[in-house]
Amino acid sequence: MDENRRFLLVRRPEGAPVPEDFALVAEQIPSPPPSGIVVRNRYASLDPAQRGWMDDAPSYMPPIPLGDPVRATTVGVVHASDSPDFAPGQWVMGLNALEDYSVSIPGGFTMPIDIGLVASPSNYLSALGAVGLTAYFGLLETARPQPGETILISGAAGAVGSAVGQIGKIAGCRVVGIAGGEEKCRRLIEDYGFDAAIDYKGKDIEVLAAEIGEAAPGGANVVFENVGGTVMEAELFNLALHARVVLCGLISEYNSAEKVGIRNLWKVLTQRATIHGFLIADFADRFAEGGQKMAQWLAEGKLRMDEDVQDGLENAYDAFMRLFSGANTGKLVLKIA
Amino acid sequence: MDENRRFLLVRRPEGAPVPEDFALVAEQIPSPPPSGIVVRNRYASLDPAQRGWMDDAPSYMPPIPLGDPVRATTVGVVHASDSPDFAPGQWVMGLNALEDYSVSIPGGFTMPIDIGLVASPSNYLSALGAVGLTAYFGLLETARPQPGETILISGAAGAVGSAVGQIGKIAGCRVVGIAGGEEKCRRLIEDYGFDAAIDYKGKDIEVLAAEIGEAAPGGANVVFENVGGTVMEAELFNLALHARVVLCGLISEYNSAEKVGIRNLWKVLTQRATIHGFLIADFADRFAEGGQKMAQWLAEGKLRMDEDVQDGLENAYDAFMRLFSGANTGKLVLKIA
Repeated sequence: MDENRRFLLVRRPEGAPVPEDFALVAEQIPSPPPSGIVVRNRYASLDPAQRGWMDDAPSYMPPIPLGDPVRATTVGVVHASDSPDFAPGQWVMGLNALEDYSVSIPGGFTMPIDIGLVASPSNYLSALGAVGLTAYFGLLETARPQPGETILISGAAGAVGSAVGQIGKIAGCRVVGIAGGEEKCRRLIEDYGFDAAIDYKGKDIEVLAAEIGEAAPGGANVVFENVGGTVMEAELFNLALHARVVLCGLISEYNSAEKVGIRNLWKVLTQRATIHGFLIADFADRFAEGGQKMAQWLAEGKLRMDEDVQDGLENAYDAFMRLFSGANTGKLVLKIA
Repeated sequence: MDENRRFLLVRRPEGAPVPEDFALVAEQIPSPPPSGIVVRNRYASLDPAQRGWMDDAPSYMPPIPLGDPVRATTVGVVHASDSPDFAPGQWVMGLNALEDYSVSIPGGFTMPIDIGLVASPSNYLSALGAVGLTAYFGLLETARPQPGETILISGAAGAVGSAVGQIGKIAGCRVVGIAGGEEKCRRLIEDYGFDAAIDYKGKDIEVLAAEIGEAAPGGANVVFENVGGTVMEAELFNLALHARVVLCGLISEYNSAEKVGIRNLWKVLTQRATIHGFLIADFADRFAEGGQKMAQWLAEGKLRMDEDVQDGLENAYDAFMRLFSGANTGKLVLKIA
């Protein structure tokens, strides 16, 4: 590879991204700036949050500038270095972009990783990455489930959701997952050990709410929300008193230009529930602690995290859209090299 | 008065109640059941929660049965008693109904009150009642504002909202109120000491959100929500990091058959805010403490609570609808006798 292919954002998507919002270009491989490094990206994380960064709206991160490559967490190998702390050949993880080579000034998110601890370097983007730690801290530190409580999880077959369910079982809870389609529901039970699985597809709110009620007769003490929209409304009809809702994602809403909104917040009031906006960045100083625990559970066979590894920068658009079509099974990763 | 006029719910309202949903009938004055009392109601509290009790939906209280009088907190005088604890002539407060005489079995909500402490017995339905205590515990115990923080209040000219603002000032906060119309906004500043007032009427979400942003440049650390709907959406666009939203009421939504819903819960996520469903009943064991503090602030002139006293059971419907038209100024009370 003697060029740097870069997957650029060239137009801000309206609703669902279309191929014309992006362009794959080839540029020269960059040189490291003073004190900086150039990383040969090997795997990139594909996440719903990237859709938000494509909008020109203030958020916890600035929008991706038009003409820049799509921002992404990657793992890769130091290709060239002007930093005393990073030698060529060192494996690193950092906030880079969907491109072959990224320029990085160590000090921010860039950190060395030990790939000897994992089966694949991509594991640092799943169980030991933001996804696994989101499940860990979102459930255990934000919702604080007690043994015997019922945890309801939307987007349960996704990477975060399936980890939340498994951690919930480790915590001694009853775990109910909501997912789209029979196959995903089968995986919740057979692969991830959920107590019950509900297929939301083709069901209106009333039917979905009733099915949740059957699976969680006393209501949900904890809701781990990855989806939003009508699925969240059906969940809110099934809150136990003083339920804790972890608002981790709203993937059903990111691409909808006309948002319907949550119409039954009164259930939060009457059940005296709480909704907690959650971002993993708030737990940055405890990543080592969480990663250690996740690695331990992986090693003990108590935790399984599937990866959906798509191949090639030239397939970046199709790979990204798997997040929204429901096609991905497990943490979505793009293999760059 | 030798008859018992009763304001009955005869049909469940669809959307906004209409006069035909109710009937005023005259019955015989009841006699006390064993160990019970008959209360001559003098003042009744009119509250948005009553609208919810008119629906056939499970809530924190059972629906009002069709044919029963509309449930209401009242203050009155014991008319006849078979209870050793309540003599005729004793002033009491309790969960009764919109009627001249209510039968009550002491032990539940019924409690003796000392009207010598207040300017009018109706004060037990405002500053020393659920309204005042909702402001007290909702703000101080649920949102826990810190000196220097900004508190944003919707329905700010209402009984709860105006008390929240005044308690917020006592707590050393900047207080911004949202209300409907110039006159209410004037009262927020001049009568209740708010730092800023915003008139929401005739403004779309973008304009309202921008005006909130000007009044609360760093965002709101606390939102005290009485309204819901588009007003709440405009507020959520102005959350400070880690803001606390006290969900106390959603009055704009109670009468709307087609609810729009909250379409920007993603702001709660990105700001890592929390939403707390709040019901004053959860603080029942601390009512004495809160009432004492409210009485003290009233006596010190630090707190003002206006009452909108409407006269006569025969005007119960028109009086109740003042809650939803925005006509009431202060805690709405119906004088029965």
